[in-house]
Amino acid sequence: MGRWAPDARGRLEQAALELYAERGFDQTTVAEIADRAGLKQRSFFRYFADKRDVLFWSQTALRELCVAAIMDAPEIVSPIDGVALALDHAAVVIEERSELVRKRKIVIAANPELRERELLKLVNLADAVAEALGRRGVDAVLANVAAEAGVTVFRIAYARWADQPGEVDLRQLLVDVMSQLHAVTARGSNRT
Amino acid sequence: MGRWAPDARGRLEQAALELYAERGFDQTTVAEIADRAGLKQRSFFRYFADKRDVLFWSQTALRELCVAAIMDAPEIVSPIDGVALALDHAAVVIEERSELVRKRKIVIAANPELRERELLKLVNLADAVAEALGRRGVDAVLANVAAEAGVTVFRIAYARWADQPGEVDLRQLLVDVMSQLHAVTARGSNRT
Repeated sequence: MGRWAPDARGRLEQAALELYAERGFDQTTVAEIADRAGLKQRSFFRYFADKRDVLFWSQTALRELCVAAIMDAPEIVSPIDGVALALDHAAVVIEERSELVRKRKIVIAANPELRERELLKLVNLADAVAEALGRRGVDAVLANVAAEAGVTVFRIAYARWADQPGEVDLRQLLVDVMSQLHAVTARGSNRT
Repeated sequence: MGRWAPDARGRLEQAALELYAERGFDQTTVAEIADRAGLKQRSFFRYFADKRDVLFWSQTALRELCVAAIMDAPEIVSPIDGVALALDHAAVVIEERSELVRKRKIVIAANPELRERELLKLVNLADAVAEALGRRGVDAVLANVAAEAGVTVFRIAYARWADQPGEVDLRQLLVDVMSQLHAVTARGSNRT
């Protein structure tokens, strides 16, 4: 699992995802999650604010990872390439956690409130990426458009990746969908 | 108001938006909305499923409008231009209803559940537009990317439009943001 080792947090996350998948998110209690992870309920609240936080802490971590990738890049050659770099860093971690991530996706897909929360998190990701690009000297308007376009690419690639377990690499899919975006937006070159 | 005349439906919508803005969405009852519109509560349910439907029926109407624009276009020159055409049709109606739309946006921004619902509706819009493009012969993968990119452009333009009441035209903003998307995704032409 690399940097995301199955410590107490990881065991709680694993237990929670299993229970959400088996019983449904709404039907699972924190006591049951702690019990399955072999931990006290108190431990749960050391790592997570609530049941929903188990599903969404990773989005916050990915957002921070994307921002760090942009801030640490030796040079931001173009806004969209800066965004692509950030998403590539995120994809590496998602691939490392692919089993958990796929379980998580199924749980979220089954619950409208969670689906909507997931979308809101992607808006936050775009905002954070745009802000980081701005701090690297990219014009605010272009940073906004590049970040939103990049997150759109991410969302499409991620959906395709989750639909084909083990068959495709998320990093490669990101490159493919980014190329498709370049193709559809190329002026005059994609007349059908 | 053109084709969106202030009939019973329009009066109910107007009354609901005023009350949501004054008291908050959660604090407003259907009885109060009907009362302010000078109608029976029964009339409310002739037009809307519930309080939330007052805010979101227009999204369904816009989606149908976008799909019709694509299906009725004499020719789909390129996927992204098909999407741009659809969004232009939507923008005309939004401009006609601009006062209501701005009120609606403020109400939605104040409520996390409504914000998340709004995002989910935009995903539905992208799916519907992609499907319509597919029916017009566009490759499914490119239709998906073009529709998602177009809805992203729409979301950015709409946010800018709503932030500058009466100062900017949504149709022009859509053209501007689409150009910015073309600029950030142009290979090799936007090195900073």
